[in-house]
Amino acid sequence: MYVKRNYGLWMTFKWSKKSFLYGLFYSSIIIFIYKITGIGFTLPWEPLSVIGIAVAFYLGFKNNSSYDRTWEARKIWGAIVNDSRTFATAILTLLNEKEGESYDQLKKDLIYRHLAWIISLRYALRKRKSWEHNFGPKNLVFVPTYYEILQNGLDKELLVYLNAGELEQYKTKSNIPSQILKKQAEEIKKLHAEGIISEYKHVWLHQIISKLYDDQGMAERIKNFPLPRQYASVALWITYFFCALIPFGLLDIFITSTELWIWMTIPLSGLIIWIFFLMERIGDYSENPFEGNYNDVPISSITRSIEIDLREMINDDNIPEPFPVENGFLM
Amino acid sequence: MYVKRNYGLWMTFKWSKKSFLYGLFYSSIIIFIYKITGIGFTLPWEPLSVIGIAVAFYLGFKNNSSYDRTWEARKIWGAIVNDSRTFATAILTLLNEKEGESYDQLKKDLIYRHLAWIISLRYALRKRKSWEHNFGPKNLVFVPTYYEILQNGLDKELLVYLNAGELEQYKTKSNIPSQILKKQAEEIKKLHAEGIISEYKHVWLHQIISKLYDDQGMAERIKNFPLPRQYASVALWITYFFCALIPFGLLDIFITSTELWIWMTIPLSGLIIWIFFLMERIGDYSENPFEGNYNDVPISSITRSIEIDLREMINDDNIPEPFPVENGFLM
Amino acid sequence: MYVKRNYGLWMTFKWSKKSFLYGLFYSSIIIFIYKITGIGFTLPWEPLSVIGIAVAFYLGFKNNSSYDRTWEARKIWGAIVNDSRTFATAILTLLNEKEGESYDQLKKDLIYRHLAWIISLRYALRKRKSWEHNFGPKNLVFVPTYYEILQNGLDKELLVYLNAGELEQYKTKSNIPSQILKKQAEEIKKLHAEGIISEYKHVWLHQIISKLYDDQGMAERIKNFPLPRQYASVALWITYFFCALIPFGLLDIFITSTELWIWMTIPLSGLIIWIFFLMERIGDYSENPFEGNYNDVPISSITRSIEIDLREMINDDNIPEPFPVENGFLM
Amino acid sequence: MYVKRNYGLWMTFKWSKKSFLYGLFYSSIIIFIYKITGIGFTLPWEPLSVIGIAVAFYLGFKNNSSYDRTWEARKIWGAIVNDSRTFATAILTLLNEKEGESYDQLKKDLIYRHLAWIISLRYALRKRKSWEHNFGPKNLVFVPTYYEILQNGLDKELLVYLNAGELEQYKTKSNIPSQILKKQAEEIKKLHAEGIISEYKHVWLHQIISKLYDDQGMAERIKNFPLPRQYASVALWITYFFCALIPFGLLDIFITSTELWIWMTIPLSGLIIWIFFLMERIGDYSENPFEGNYNDVPISSITRSIEIDLREMINDDNIPEPFPVENGFLM
Amino acid sequence: MYVKRNYGLWMTFKWSKKSFLYGLFYSSIIIFIYKITGIGFTLPWEPLSVIGIAVAFYLGFKNNSSYDRTWEARKIWGAIVNDSRTFATAILTLLNEKEGESYDQLKKDLIYRHLAWIISLRYALRKRKSWEHNFGPKNLVFVPTYYEILQNGLDKELLVYLNAGELEQYKTKSNIPSQILKKQAEEIKKLHAEGIISEYKHVWLHQIISKLYDDQGMAERIKNFPLPRQYASVALWITYFFCALIPFGLLDIFITSTELWIWMTIPLSGLIIWIFFLMERIGDYSENPFEGNYNDVPISSITRSIEIDLREMINDDNIPEPFPVENGFLM
Repeated sequence: MYVKRNYGLWMTFKWSKKSFLYGLFYSSIIIFIYKITGIGFTLPWEPLSVIGIAVAFYLGFKNNSSYDRTWEARKIWGAIVNDSRTFATAILTLLNEKEGESYDQLKKDLIYRHLAWIISLRYALRKRKSWEHNFGPKNLVFVPTYYEILQNGLDKELLVYLNAGELEQYKTKSNIPSQILKKQAEEIKKLHAEGIISEYKHVWLHQIISKLYDDQGMAERIKNFPLPRQYASVALWITYFFCALIPFGLLDIFITSTELWIWMTIPLSGLIIWIFFLMERIGDYSENPFEGNYNDVPISSITRSIEIDLREMINDDNIPEPFPVENGFLM
Repeated sequence: MYVKRNYGLWMTFKWSKKSFLYGLFYSSIIIFIYKITGIGFTLPWEPLSVIGIAVAFYLGFKNNSSYDRTWEARKIWGAIVNDSRTFATAILTLLNEKEGESYDQLKKDLIYRHLAWIISLRYALRKRKSWEHNFGPKNLVFVPTYYEILQNGLDKELLVYLNAGELEQYKTKSNIPSQILKKQAEEIKKLHAEGIISEYKHVWLHQIISKLYDDQGMAERIKNFPLPRQYASVALWITYFFCALIPFGLLDIFITSTELWIWMTIPLSGLIIWIFFLMERIGDYSENPFEGNYNDVPISSITRSIEIDLREMINDDNIPEPFPVENGFLM
Repeated sequence: MYVKRNYGLWMTFKWSKKSFLYGLFYSSIIIFIYKITGIGFTLPWEPLSVIGIAVAFYLGFKNNSSYDRTWEARKIWGAIVNDSRTFATAILTLLNEKEGESYDQLKKDLIYRHLAWIISLRYALRKRKSWEHNFGPKNLVFVPTYYEILQNGLDKELLVYLNAGELEQYKTKSNIPSQILKKQAEEIKKLHAEGIISEYKHVWLHQIISKLYDDQGMAERIKNFPLPRQYASVALWITYFFCALIPFGLLDIFITSTELWIWMTIPLSGLIIWIFFLMERIGDYSENPFEGNYNDVPISSITRSIEIDLREMINDDNIPEPFPVENGFLM
Repeated sequence: MYVKRNYGLWMTFKWSKKSFLYGLFYSSIIIFIYKITGIGFTLPWEPLSVIGIAVAFYLGFKNNSSYDRTWEARKIWGAIVNDSRTFATAILTLLNEKEGESYDQLKKDLIYRHLAWIISLRYALRKRKSWEHNFGPKNLVFVPTYYEILQNGLDKELLVYLNAGELEQYKTKSNIPSQILKKQAEEIKKLHAEGIISEYKHVWLHQIISKLYDDQGMAERIKNFPLPRQYASVALWITYFFCALIPFGLLDIFITSTELWIWMTIPLSGLIIWIFFLMERIGDYSENPFEGNYNDVPISSITRSIEIDLREMINDDNIPEPFPVENGFLM
Repeated sequence: MYVKRNYGLWMTFKWSKKSFLYGLFYSSIIIFIYKITGIGFTLPWEPLSVIGIAVAFYLGFKNNSSYDRTWEARKIWGAIVNDSRTFATAILTLLNEKEGESYDQLKKDLIYRHLAWIISLRYALRKRKSWEHNFGPKNLVFVPTYYEILQNGLDKELLVYLNAGELEQYKTKSNIPSQILKKQAEEIKKLHAEGIISEYKHVWLHQIISKLYDDQGMAERIKNFPLPRQYASVALWITYFFCALIPFGLLDIFITSTELWIWMTIPLSGLIIWIFFLMERIGDYSENPFEGNYNDVPISSITRSIEIDLREMINDDNIPEPFPVENGFLM
């Protein structure tokens, strides 16, 4: 997530310049051929208008859908924040404390395992999918802290909150976060068996676990189900076709002007092509909110702030700092 | 569901080439008649612009609705994932285990029957409806594994999780998944009667059953209620009418040019017709997310991952592999 | 609901031909007057474009809203399906069965009264409202089964599930379904008073009743609150005004052509007028999903499938057949 | 709410004629000045097209938002209907009736106070806000019954359901409905203290009170938070600017025609200006669904139907009639 | 929030005049250069139309998203109102009062701490973020009361409801509202430990705390996650590019007119540029509903009305006045 007021013009341009340059190159070729052969292979602009407007609609629809995906992803992580606080206060205030026993270690274990759940979920969500952009470590130059943590791997982060034996067990399973929550349910069952929570509170704690399963499943749903590729692909191809026609359409307009203006076809084609591809690209780079890209929902940062909040609740030591903003990006 | 980054251009074209070819053919006829008779039956482009924009709006609305159906279908199956995990942990951790008895077989039976519910629901959802595209087995050449499972039939899959007698009983009923859930409710009632779960946990388990009924009912709703045919049909017919006028409109523009350009009417008509029908077709092939088509929500794969997750929870043997991606498609 | 793949072109045209014919007639008059008087009362097309696009937007908004109403109506009836199953399994599995008593008659009575609730709700929803289309029995020629049931009246259907005395009592009240649910609540209270359900299950059953009240109330809300007439009326009038201007605008374009082409104004006006009114009409005929029209949400059929499902749950006899599709329509 | 099929054309026109007349007047002045001075201060239509389409978009967005507000308001009142029925059946069937005591008066008091809550909420919602249209009594000529009740004041209506002393107490508070619900919670507490409801049912009844607070708060939210004025104002001003340019644009088109046609600028300007202002006005008059306007959500009528339904449940006497439709309007 | 009917034209213009003035200035330069050099560097308007319409779409999408953020923010604060009332009545009516003890002080403390939670949340939400507009105190001239309270700081407001020691403890934590709710949960636990609330009511009160965590987390989500900057930035840059081309496009149109009209390019460019930037700006100033701007959701006023409502419920003294409207603004 970029957190400054606006991406600068230059930054925006640099990020999307390819389509502009190809646009210039493509229209230059057309103009040169025209100049050399003298054949005015032009297209009238009127039908292009209709195609252009239809394409703009279609891109609007796609941008809208991409935005909705990002926003839903953020909502889900908002729910993870909320349910984490609910879970922590439930653990801290619902147990039946008998004879001066306050079960501090037990509470801490449950909250630590909860943090392990969030961290392992975050990792699972940022594994690369076949429809996502291909960002390797080398692309993440602007966020070195994030990159460093990524290099250290999941285990190092989890070992802060889990003991090694438990971790090994999870690693034999396919879906680690799902199994961590199952483990939490088993621990809660033990609380009930030992009489620390009543029948009724047992169910309420299981309902909180159920909410956490919902949060996890919703995040996985967005991760595992792309914007349907048929929609995305058609957006791309009709943008290409429309842009391929633009220089012919502009040439048709400029051809009646003086010699000089014919060359105007080139920059103006470049500009229009750039604007359409920019609109296409914006949706394209926002549709996968967990791909480990600069435009991601900042789940590393959200995870960290949950860690801080919950560990402050149990008056823990060595609470980490908030995740840093680097070069305007928050991951 | 296609899981690669984009449908290739050629693949997209091949899938939708019919409208392009008919467009070429249709406009060729018009140009030939014009050439032969010399009668300039042209239409001005200006009113066609307005119709074209109106049609593009209408298609945008339809595409949006189709997308919403697909997305809602995916959400429902996401909820099935979540509620399955909740159900499994409830069964695993809420029973009152007395005197060293851990009820392992009983738990396994309930979880197995739950998996049978999902499988039978998946089958019911993929039965062909009168408004869906007609995909017979021969069309599913790209996903042989899926096709093979389909050929084996529901019984074979269910017998992994149910005994033959129980299966026979379900087969006398109209709605198998609905009756499986009823059976689950009866089994839970027995748990209560035997004192394994308390009054209160009995209700919570019934509430989970109620959520599963919701999930099933929502999936059936999307299956059984198409995008209202009046909307879909009008989209189709106004696209036809608009496209039928296109060559006349283009001829009107090109007729003032030199001889050569009149022939341009043909490819340009073909292209515009293709773009409009492509937009129409994209919605049309996405509006039924359970029709057993390549663009389906991948419910076979989701079912499989629930099987893996739940069976790992009970440390089961012979856990199947994830459903394969074949030729870029996941079913 | 129409359940075939598409309304045929001819069917669509027949249903909406009025506007086409009036369009032809109206533009013919204009052309004749022009021919006779020679006064070229034409309008430039450019401003008409802007009006046309604005009207297309407005109709798009209205179609969208109508679609949302239909879809919401279907969702509500989906919820009725789900909550009916939940209610039935609750009745079947939550009662405390003592000493071999299984309360079969009592359960059947409760489930039968539930079916009576759905049927009476369906009747209430299909009473004609002052803003709905006026469909008398004579219009329902394509769905004779539906028509026959309609003629038999509510009482005949209810008497299958209620005894005559109870029915008479309901008929003294304004809102029959609402009073049936109250009766259910009273019957459940009796179960509690007799010790068949505990305090806690009593509340859960009341919560299910509360969900059913929600479903009923939501369906009544859509029935009793039309698409606000100010929006619908403006859509109609601005479509009229735009269409009234079309022939003048086309005449302006064609007037510069040869004699022959002036006559083209007539069919082209007819066509554009038809397309705009068709878009208007589609929304208009979809905005009231319970008006007893061919485009209705098929609540007769849904009711029937609930009857089948619930009666199969209690292994009942004489279970009726699914509601038939007649001439492509399902009611 | 208007309940007939459509607002008549004349009615629509009369309601919005101002903009048409001003449009005529304004364009007449321009034409006259042109005629007198001969200076052709015209504007080309092409850029006006773009502005016109942008304005149409913006108005579409605003109409959509207004519609959503109205629809949400109706949903909230639908929820009030549902929760009222749930509350009533809860009161009627959840109390523990010992020794032949059926607590009829007590139940009636609670249900009567509930009706008082709805009535006082309705009054609070129809107090005028600074951003609403200024409808005084004199404007409500078409709905005399509504007007009469309004004149009688809140007290008269409340005294049907509350005794005078209780009413006086509420009148010392800022938010009467909020305090009535608090009173209900206190009465329910008494039921618990007297052993008429158990611990568990006490909480369920408090949860119903909590739902009623939600309903009230949601209705107040729509009342107290207008469509953000910045959006509404920009819609108005850009419509003005666009309309101010229209006659110049039309003059530019007509100026090349014969003398006669220049005068056509006047009616055509009037018409286009009228259409745009009509679209603006429709949203404007629908954005405040509780302003006591003819387009209001009919909360007087809904209140009345709740009164009838709940009082029929307790077999009450003197049940009032449904709220009348007068001149096509239901309030 | 502005609460008058409309922002005046002058007010709107003053707020957005920059783009108009720059537009005039920019197009003047172009015209002057044209006049001096005589080089007609013009662009045809047709392709500009398509860009203009695409830009208008994109701005429409952005305005829609901004509006949704504002509306969601208002909904969340509506939920805070509702849940506050629920919490207050729960505290007031669910405690088990034994032997004439009514726990008035205890109830007051809990309700006062709840008010402290709302106030501290409000402060946290109005801390400046790096993507928000930079409003320092000097900008808030129209709302002096709000400004004064802001200057007094959080502590002064909190000390009304909390004792100094408790406040100090919160100030050592990162997220004050989150820790206040944890404190509430601990106080409720004490009630349970002392037997003032039962097991069951303890859970219900924890569920209300959980709802409050949801409300807080949702408000923080909107605060901490801007409208994705990539969308906002592209909106800005394509508006700039389109506006940069406008004078060239208009010059192309006017260049064929008489000398005089060429100068018309300047005001007309200014006007169109102003309209597009106005639409851009409206979204821009509505996308952060808690930035302490005049267009904010009025959370100071909502907080105050909750204070009044809850303190009236406990018959408190010195209840503050509603938050004033100043110069048409409510904060």
